[in-house]
Amino acid sequence: MKTLVIGATGVIGRAVSAALEEAGHEVVRASRRGGVRVDIADPDSVAALLASLPGLGAVVCCAASGNLTRLTEGTDAEYLTGLEGKLLGQVRLVRQAIGHLGTGGSITLTGGVFEEPTPGGSFGALVNAGLEAFAAAAAVDLPDGPRVNVVSPGWVSETLEAMGRDGAAGTPARDVARAYLAAVTGTYTGRVLRPTRA
Amino acid sequence: MKTLVIGATGVIGRAVSAALEEAGHEVVRASRRGGVRVDIADPDSVAALLASLPGLGAVVCCAASGNLTRLTEGTDAEYLTGLEGKLLGQVRLVRQAIGHLGTGGSITLTGGVFEEPTPGGSFGALVNAGLEAFAAAAAVDLPDGPRVNVVSPGWVSETLEAMGRDGAAGTPARDVARAYLAAVTGTYTGRVLRPTRA
Repeated sequence: MKTLVIGATGVIGRAVSAALEEAGHEVVRASRRGGVRVDIADPDSVAALLASLPGLGAVVCCAASGNLTRLTEGTDAEYLTGLEGKLLGQVRLVRQAIGHLGTGGSITLTGGVFEEPTPGGSFGALVNAGLEAFAAAAAVDLPDGPRVNVVSPGWVSETLEAMGRDGAAGTPARDVARAYLAAVTGTYTGRVLRPTRA
Repeated sequence: MKTLVIGATGVIGRAVSAALEEAGHEVVRASRRGGVRVDIADPDSVAALLASLPGLGAVVCCAASGNLTRLTEGTDAEYLTGLEGKLLGQVRLVRQAIGHLGTGGSITLTGGVFEEPTPGGSFGALVNAGLEAFAAAAAVDLPDGPRVNVVSPGWVSETLEAMGRDGAAGTPARDVARAYLAAVTGTYTGRVLRPTRA
């Protein structure tokens, strides 16, 4: 199956791309910075990319998380980090990808890191809870597919280690990638998958 | 206590304003269409209104719900109805109101109608789940207040009757208003209140 991975240069995107290739997928790696260029905050770039990929079977979006900004701090634009890319970008991506995917197709989005409320994390909480509810409701709108799911990866070990923290508090990227693989290759729809350490 | 009710001309807003007045509040009724004019999709109009209300104790926003648009239909703008007003408008309102409210102040937002996934309701589901998660996380950012809560009113009897449907399937507006009153006068913060028929 030809599978598009958006955000393929990140920690999660690299692991997901590798896991999909191991499972026999023809992976198209796209991101803002490398490989095929796309920015999900720019619907025209998504439309152009989808139009260039006939026979596409699945889309996986490993979107980055936003920054932490407290309610009492920053500008509205700083506070609303993630609105255009992570939230609206992923929602528009679903609307755009529907017509490009064949029978058995799927769209897998990326939800949140934070399991518990975090100072400065109120807009991130909105984005992640919103995406999870969106996926559940999207399945009602798409009874004939494509399937739509969200992976909420939690903290990834490699990301924690890059921040100088204990990777054991997170889930290794290869285990996170298994959840994406399950979303793409399984029969789930409207579900939130929460990766766990193998 | 001086309490601002935004969306005071709607079915819920009228009942909430009346309940607050019965409880002794000095109610400032604002809406897009009547009373003091404000549009929560327009941050400047909110800023001007808040600046004109010294000594404000509480803000209640009875924001309208969006339309139903299926994932496979409409333009992005039609699909994203409620983004600027209901979702971002209420989030920005919280950020703007924080500095205007004294000790013991509160902000009460309005969440969703739909309890179960509904065709065309995927963006509404995102908005409502997002607002609920936002309120819970906002409380972490605001340990010294104001309190932030969301009322998720469900279907209101009077609204159902105006649509020619059975009002008994919903909650009477006066019972919905009790939940808003509890959010304003109680000690809740970061909570979602779901009104029930008395």
